[in-house]
Amino acid sequence: MFKEPFTLKLSGHLFDNDNILPSYVNLIRELWSNGYRMAVVTGGGSLARRYIELGRRMNTNEAMLDLLGILVSRLNAQLLAAALSDIAYVTIPTNLDEVFRAWSTGRLVITGGFQPGQSTATVALLVSEFLGIKRLIDCANVDAVYTSDPRIDPSAKRLGKVSITELMGMLKSKTIAGTYDLLDPWALGIAQRSGVTIFVVGCSKPEALRRLVIDGISEGTIITP
Amino acid sequence: MFKEPFTLKLSGHLFDNDNILPSYVNLIRELWSNGYRMAVVTGGGSLARRYIELGRRMNTNEAMLDLLGILVSRLNAQLLAAALSDIAYVTIPTNLDEVFRAWSTGRLVITGGFQPGQSTATVALLVSEFLGIKRLIDCANVDAVYTSDPRIDPSAKRLGKVSITELMGMLKSKTIAGTYDLLDPWALGIAQRSGVTIFVVGCSKPEALRRLVIDGISEGTIITP
Amino acid sequence: MFKEPFTLKLSGHLFDNDNILPSYVNLIRELWSNGYRMAVVTGGGSLARRYIELGRRMNTNEAMLDLLGILVSRLNAQLLAAALSDIAYVTIPTNLDEVFRAWSTGRLVITGGFQPGQSTATVALLVSEFLGIKRLIDCANVDAVYTSDPRIDPSAKRLGKVSITELMGMLKSKTIAGTYDLLDPWALGIAQRSGVTIFVVGCSKPEALRRLVIDGISEGTIITP
Amino acid sequence: MFKEPFTLKLSGHLFDNDNILPSYVNLIRELWSNGYRMAVVTGGGSLARRYIELGRRMNTNEAMLDLLGILVSRLNAQLLAAALSDIAYVTIPTNLDEVFRAWSTGRLVITGGFQPGQSTATVALLVSEFLGIKRLIDCANVDAVYTSDPRIDPSAKRLGKVSITELMGMLKSKTIAGTYDLLDPWALGIAQRSGVTIFVVGCSKPEALRRLVIDGISEGTIITP
Amino acid sequence: MFKEPFTLKLSGHLFDNDNILPSYVNLIRELWSNGYRMAVVTGGGSLARRYIELGRRMNTNEAMLDLLGILVSRLNAQLLAAALSDIAYVTIPTNLDEVFRAWSTGRLVITGGFQPGQSTATVALLVSEFLGIKRLIDCANVDAVYTSDPRIDPSAKRLGKVSITELMGMLKSKTIAGTYDLLDPWALGIAQRSGVTIFVVGCSKPEALRRLVIDGISEGTIITP
Amino acid sequence: MFKEPFTLKLSGHLFDNDNILPSYVNLIRELWSNGYRMAVVTGGGSLARRYIELGRRMNTNEAMLDLLGILVSRLNAQLLAAALSDIAYVTIPTNLDEVFRAWSTGRLVITGGFQPGQSTATVALLVSEFLGIKRLIDCANVDAVYTSDPRIDPSAKRLGKVSITELMGMLKSKTIAGTYDLLDPWALGIAQRSGVTIFVVGCSKPEALRRLVIDGISEGTIITP
Repeated sequence: MFKEPFTLKLSGHLFDNDNILPSYVNLIRELWSNGYRMAVVTGGGSLARRYIELGRRMNTNEAMLDLLGILVSRLNAQLLAAALSDIAYVTIPTNLDEVFRAWSTGRLVITGGFQPGQSTATVALLVSEFLGIKRLIDCANVDAVYTSDPRIDPSAKRLGKVSITELMGMLKSKTIAGTYDLLDPWALGIAQRSGVTIFVVGCSKPEALRRLVIDGISEGTIITP
Repeated sequence: MFKEPFTLKLSGHLFDNDNILPSYVNLIRELWSNGYRMAVVTGGGSLARRYIELGRRMNTNEAMLDLLGILVSRLNAQLLAAALSDIAYVTIPTNLDEVFRAWSTGRLVITGGFQPGQSTATVALLVSEFLGIKRLIDCANVDAVYTSDPRIDPSAKRLGKVSITELMGMLKSKTIAGTYDLLDPWALGIAQRSGVTIFVVGCSKPEALRRLVIDGISEGTIITP
Repeated sequence: MFKEPFTLKLSGHLFDNDNILPSYVNLIRELWSNGYRMAVVTGGGSLARRYIELGRRMNTNEAMLDLLGILVSRLNAQLLAAALSDIAYVTIPTNLDEVFRAWSTGRLVITGGFQPGQSTATVALLVSEFLGIKRLIDCANVDAVYTSDPRIDPSAKRLGKVSITELMGMLKSKTIAGTYDLLDPWALGIAQRSGVTIFVVGCSKPEALRRLVIDGISEGTIITP
Repeated sequence: MFKEPFTLKLSGHLFDNDNILPSYVNLIRELWSNGYRMAVVTGGGSLARRYIELGRRMNTNEAMLDLLGILVSRLNAQLLAAALSDIAYVTIPTNLDEVFRAWSTGRLVITGGFQPGQSTATVALLVSEFLGIKRLIDCANVDAVYTSDPRIDPSAKRLGKVSITELMGMLKSKTIAGTYDLLDPWALGIAQRSGVTIFVVGCSKPEALRRLVIDGISEGTIITP
Repeated sequence: MFKEPFTLKLSGHLFDNDNILPSYVNLIRELWSNGYRMAVVTGGGSLARRYIELGRRMNTNEAMLDLLGILVSRLNAQLLAAALSDIAYVTIPTNLDEVFRAWSTGRLVITGGFQPGQSTATVALLVSEFLGIKRLIDCANVDAVYTSDPRIDPSAKRLGKVSITELMGMLKSKTIAGTYDLLDPWALGIAQRSGVTIFVVGCSKPEALRRLVIDGISEGTIITP
Repeated sequence: MFKEPFTLKLSGHLFDNDNILPSYVNLIRELWSNGYRMAVVTGGGSLARRYIELGRRMNTNEAMLDLLGILVSRLNAQLLAAALSDIAYVTIPTNLDEVFRAWSTGRLVITGGFQPGQSTATVALLVSEFLGIKRLIDCANVDAVYTSDPRIDPSAKRLGKVSITELMGMLKSKTIAGTYDLLDPWALGIAQRSGVTIFVVGCSKPEALRRLVIDGISEGTIITP
């Protein structure tokens, strides 16, 4: 199922946890050496939030705050590329043109955020679209998509499969949009227009990713275009 | 009112009409020589649509189609910069970093689109936010914001003033989002978070722009954060 | 004959005609998949002329006018690359260094103009020279080289083969140089010094290109160094 | 004394402490608005060490580890530039050429590390030399230069003034070079050849910096070329 | 006469002579401090020829040989910029965009060659045209334009003034074009279309340049558009 | 022994001698075609010294003087790349990122200096470290490492093998460091930390290089980490 190239979005939370990151590094190298091809997009995690808070306390404007988060996501991308320097393109791309240049060398491409006002989920979908990739695996801070935030709503229902249209409807009907920032409307819009299927899996267990890529078994949510 | 620097978004339609463009060129030069400072963002217009159609007929992916539209908007920016080469930064910026570099020279900065999946309205708001600009004038293909599309709905009501929150509510309640593409939710979200007021005026009469900038009289719609 | 890499110059007129462009796209893909390797240079066509006229009406200097033409030729290059994104380098090079970088990836390289004061024919010869390519096919707005412009001089003679030296003599003896801008002295000078043979074929029938590349049959003019 | 432009090196430790950074931001803005001109170089601090350790645990090579430290120092530079975006060049330079471009705009230039195998102290001296700056203030993790590390050697003597030659002699005679990494031989060599005086002050009290710049009173060590 | 910005082309021969170069450096600084503004273009001289010969002996293609000459002209530009680093833009531009960026800072801009197949005389005219400069002073290896090469033809007549059209006629009528490479047809064509007047003076005596700029007295040839 | 990729540092003296350079060009092509892979770093030689002297005479600062030397080393790198354009990456990298991009294409990478305050020996070690290369061959102006400078000290002893630690001790104990500038402490420090073995051979006889690479026989000095 993932023999075609896919995009892998890694939650920034992975980089807050010193013990789990090496497992992902090993898993990515193992997949790569077994012929799986992927472009990786990393998030910023709690370190991004720390720098944004620091900046906000000093009255920094929103664009600059976003920029700080982007730099942290690129730092995480560089850490991953450094640990995988035998197979990765070690110069982190900062826009779609550079992603293409890196991709055309045949090496593992790893990127962070691109520009203010844009989530790394959106980056992952832009990269997918630009490279003609039809499957995105989102290793997220939650293990699946729920009808509402399971951390605050005990009646939240876990979804095994949901269409982008249904998901967008759910996002709209909520009083405060984006209470948990898995996927934003802009990211979903790109998935929709380009027919990208999104596989959400929890990032706390690398095994979920391995099972999805190798065995094609989803333990999270499949979001269909 | 516009003695502080402002952002000027010019609809791509201006570039479809060989007669109106020179008036805008003269008006911008006149404003500049009277001490008004601005960053200009140009749209792609019907030429962008032509190239996108051509590309679509040859099965081009959506990201590449957007790229064609971006290139046309940059071509329009270059035409404007060429005609204003006595005051403009003639190298068209392609991202926020380059906008900042151009802006720090004190010359008139003109830019087109930035990246796929993003409207030039969003670019105009990102530029405003990044440079700390609090007012955006949107010379649009319509002369104001209406409660629905006035070209198809005779009961459409013209709005003199509307808040971003109200406008977003109206966009959401419509069955098909974005039937007329003046401003998208992403652009409005940036205006909201950074407190940018948007002045919509029709692009068919340069006088409306002059009156707004010099006399502070809005003939279109004021969208308040 | 064209099993060695060659350069393909496509007249900007191809991009004025929505129907013929897809045939060229298909032909280039077919040639590529049969092992033919080429670098493509696109012209600006009537759209370039329109923007140059617009600029001239607003008193733009000559360098800026050339720049507008160059941007249109790059827009055409991007359209072609978009339609061929499965095999092409989709980031359009803007100078010889970038052409080399793109070429070294093994993908189809497509470029437009480079700098003011320089025709795209010259670009095609600079690219050939830089990459060590010895054959340039010029899909031109005319179907061959004539002793004078066949559109205005009924006694114009069609040339099957002509040397660069002879052609330069003909260009010099004409009262007004460059009445039809197929090839300029600078372009011919580069062909001469680097031993590049130029094959002129008409761009209105893709079949002429196919026959030349696959069967080695010239229906236009061969210009020998 | 500091009416001529100077270079300001800020220890990475400043960025570990959320409370002291805003004082430095205010002090720099105050100095700037009083006509003092400076180029700032930021270190990486404990965050740099954390990423380097993470990388090392995953068998990353030394050059890549250095790169991680450099990225953190640039993140710190970006945070500072964001907080000072009214006066700073907000695009962080990554080499001497870019430092010059930023400097030539007249804005406050802030930079982090440049390349592997090089301390940010060395960067600060390269920047000084390139811009023709003769004074470097080093806001360091220690409050002065000592004859040995005061944290482990109680007999360490505090130096009010020392020549580069003397300091180099002291560094050489130590069994393990660089036990505390204030200044390395390469940095000192550049100071020597270009006649840059280095003023070491402790970074824990912004007042020490203010007194040095405004009153010319050194509370730390003056290293003379 | 030269109170408007002008372009100054310096023959590469200046850099072969260690004694005359400092005089030019001093003269340029003196002119600059007296308010004269200029963009400087440097040639490659005998060092360029040495590297080209070395390359040719190793069967290097013509484009690469030109590139070697360009690099030498940039090395000369860097030497000049280094000696004038108090007033010059020390990062040498390599194309028109970069020339514009440097020029917009208000510093003295110095550049060498741009691309293969193009003389530095052509670069000087492209720079003039792009920046809207109407006067080019060509400090050449000859002290004026002659009807033929004075070094081989004793009947060569010195021209005090000549039009571009007349000069082009003379270049064409010669059996072997360009026997002495002061100005090529491409360079002259740009001067013609953009109305640039060229002042040829000999580079062996800086006094000739001083008299021309300050007193407006030409001791060489004025080439009028 | 050299079947793994290695780094080849070529002394700038090679470029002073028109006769020996072609032998190296042929040897490198021969090695390449036999499957040996390498990254080449070129020095500046006597031409670098000439430009530095010229600059110094005009009161240029040290950073700019270094820059002149770097440009000459890049000119030499370009000459080599031009002569080897069938196998080389002809765009000369100017920092580690660009080295990586060039290296990832699989072509022969040739580079000169990177930045002021840094020897080309250090560049060669940074390149080795960044690319994970463990062997550096230094074709130097001397045929081996001696206990002191053999040109001035007749009792100088030739070393067949020496450890980096021993060599650093020898450099430190000398009154004036670096009397002959084969390798500086910074370069050796990088070799040490990354475990790079350095093979010093004289550059006057290409045979020494061939024997080392093909037969594994060192005629100079092996410096072990």
